[in-house]
Amino acid sequence: MPENTPLVLRQDAGAVAILTLNRPDTRNSLSRAMIAALHGALETVGAEPGIRCVVLAAEGRAFSAGHDLKEVTAHRSDADGGAGFFAAIMAECAAMMQAVTTLPQPVVAAVEGIATAAGCQLAASCDLVVASESAKFCTPGVDIGLFCSTPGVALARAVPRKAAMEMLLLGEMVPAGEAHRMGLVNRVVPAGQALAEAEALAQRIAARSAVALRMGKRGFNAQAGLPLDRAYEEAGRVMVENLLAADAEEGIGAFLGKRKPSWQHR
Amino acid sequence: MPENTPLVLRQDAGAVAILTLNRPDTRNSLSRAMIAALHGALETVGAEPGIRCVVLAAEGRAFSAGHDLKEVTAHRSDADGGAGFFAAIMAECAAMMQAVTTLPQPVVAAVEGIATAAGCQLAASCDLVVASESAKFCTPGVDIGLFCSTPGVALARAVPRKAAMEMLLLGEMVPAGEAHRMGLVNRVVPAGQALAEAEALAQRIAARSAVALRMGKRGFNAQAGLPLDRAYEEAGRVMVENLLAADAEEGIGAFLGKRKPSWQHR
Amino acid sequence: MPENTPLVLRQDAGAVAILTLNRPDTRNSLSRAMIAALHGALETVGAEPGIRCVVLAAEGRAFSAGHDLKEVTAHRSDADGGAGFFAAIMAECAAMMQAVTTLPQPVVAAVEGIATAAGCQLAASCDLVVASESAKFCTPGVDIGLFCSTPGVALARAVPRKAAMEMLLLGEMVPAGEAHRMGLVNRVVPAGQALAEAEALAQRIAARSAVALRMGKRGFNAQAGLPLDRAYEEAGRVMVENLLAADAEEGIGAFLGKRKPSWQHR
Repeated sequence: MPENTPLVLRQDAGAVAILTLNRPDTRNSLSRAMIAALHGALETVGAEPGIRCVVLAAEGRAFSAGHDLKEVTAHRSDADGGAGFFAAIMAECAAMMQAVTTLPQPVVAAVEGIATAAGCQLAASCDLVVASESAKFCTPGVDIGLFCSTPGVALARAVPRKAAMEMLLLGEMVPAGEAHRMGLVNRVVPAGQALAEAEALAQRIAARSAVALRMGKRGFNAQAGLPLDRAYEEAGRVMVENLLAADAEEGIGAFLGKRKPSWQHR
Repeated sequence: MPENTPLVLRQDAGAVAILTLNRPDTRNSLSRAMIAALHGALETVGAEPGIRCVVLAAEGRAFSAGHDLKEVTAHRSDADGGAGFFAAIMAECAAMMQAVTTLPQPVVAAVEGIATAAGCQLAASCDLVVASESAKFCTPGVDIGLFCSTPGVALARAVPRKAAMEMLLLGEMVPAGEAHRMGLVNRVVPAGQALAEAEALAQRIAARSAVALRMGKRGFNAQAGLPLDRAYEEAGRVMVENLLAADAEEGIGAFLGKRKPSWQHR
Repeated sequence: MPENTPLVLRQDAGAVAILTLNRPDTRNSLSRAMIAALHGALETVGAEPGIRCVVLAAEGRAFSAGHDLKEVTAHRSDADGGAGFFAAIMAECAAMMQAVTTLPQPVVAAVEGIATAAGCQLAASCDLVVASESAKFCTPGVDIGLFCSTPGVALARAVPRKAAMEMLLLGEMVPAGEAHRMGLVNRVVPAGQALAEAEALAQRIAARSAVALRMGKRGFNAQAGLPLDRAYEEAGRVMVENLLAADAEEGIGAFLGKRKPSWQHR
């Protein structure tokens, strides 16, 4: 693949932006450049009010195999033995993963093939995950002496504690159906259909008011970790703000008037 | 339905109080008056030591369809565009939902038909949920430009993160069986049997020591959000207090003596 | 059983230590002496770098029936009515349970028969749980006037909220398959096979780098309760430290070189 081929492709379908990891020859490994490209693409999309939902997909047979271990190893010959590079790439990767969570728009992952290590973390970081029957999730760091500690951050927030520990300690491939049972995957579809289904869900989401989606996603994440009383304070503030937005007035009016709402998206 | 018909009915069966939402013509919408009536009924029951478990049920075909959107819309013509009313009803609704959680007695929801938006939140706020096969759970705020942010508080504490996001972003009806798989529902029973099963569970709970139930429910909620060491401090204090209560002495003595305990409930 | 028979047996199989509760005649009740013996055994194992995984099993037909109620009752005739003993045993029990969590090595429970009250808590406190088809989990404190508040700490961190409340409020036996569905159990095996399967998992874990396992388990628990940004800071630090460890260099090198890694375990 020529070096100047974009690392992340973008294609819009109406109000849905489809971001596609585009290094199939490296199984879409999250090299420093790929992390930067994806983070950049997310920031660009996040600033566009015309985009109301994002799909994250991948070229080739793998969703993503995680960090680029050749790149990691090459930096062991740095003067500091790699310490500076390791700290930098971990910080950049964590910032990119959090950018998925803090993106104003919901993000739907479309997973075909393997999503391993930081690739599994990337899928787990998305708001919704569509997986094909042939998709597999795995955090195999223990096999290479490097526990998947940062993927564990996303896993611990998606699946029950013991399921996360099993994936992290054993490093076994988890098929899509089992990942669905655990709560890591929202929908399982036939092989080859993950992108189509993810885009269908994204279009359904994008047909809704941008204001409600933006307030809702941010508000959900803001309250989720708080004690109950503070969570209600936070969510209550969001509800009042949302009720005062033009789209809620229109949406509620349309509902009561039994007509289709017409969003201003503000 | 005449205006003076009580919004919330109460019927006691021994030590079980059955509270029933009684506005079937509005699908038991949580109007400001309904929120106040339910909150008041909970406070009354909470102060009665003779009641050891509460069932929350509903008249008619729906459990509850959530906020009263006509009432919400009417207040848009207030001088402040509704801001004051919206803040007040959100605060009152959140206080009522938290009163379910802080009620000394366990609360078992009996859900037939739909539990949507704040109605879904109300079911999710109960300690246990019995749903009939025809029950459906839904947070469809996105359809009316008003993300179900406060229902999301209860959902986020009942089901895995991605399941909550799917309900909130897509607003689709979730059948009882799927809600059970997610953890939102404890028992699924044939249509028409939710109240009978909820009452049966409530009677089984109410046969136990009021002291143990009261300390246990409060203690569980107090420790659930804490770091492990502080959770054990909290729960350890509760255990010592519970061990020193007359009913634990009686209960343990009865167990060792292979006889039936006789609770003093203090 | 003679009084000088050890309360906890230890047998090593390579880098796996198998600790076995050895009071089958009391259904391995967690007497003060048993808690101390198990805590001591964990501390000993925790200090041994040659042990890379621990199995926790039990002699006889029960995993553990929880606290020793005869001992508890005997202390009611203390001058303080038992208050001092109750506080002491709760503190000691909580410290032992937390020692399972903070043990450097992963702990795999092998559950045959009942795991009830603090016995259920002990299983839930392990990193992974293998249960036989005949295993049953239960928190029946409500039956004896003593709500299972401390078991609730471990349960609340292993299963969804409503599943925990159902176990705690109803006190019913939960079969292994249902416990698996809830997330309390990782693997269900035929009756009599729990120990063999737990040991097989432990050997697979112990074949990995001790450094990665130690950093990984500690790091996972450190980040799990934190807000997302702080969790990533914490886990990022662990990743950098792990990358700089000899075993990660060896493991990644072996992976890239398509050879088997040779761990130094430091």
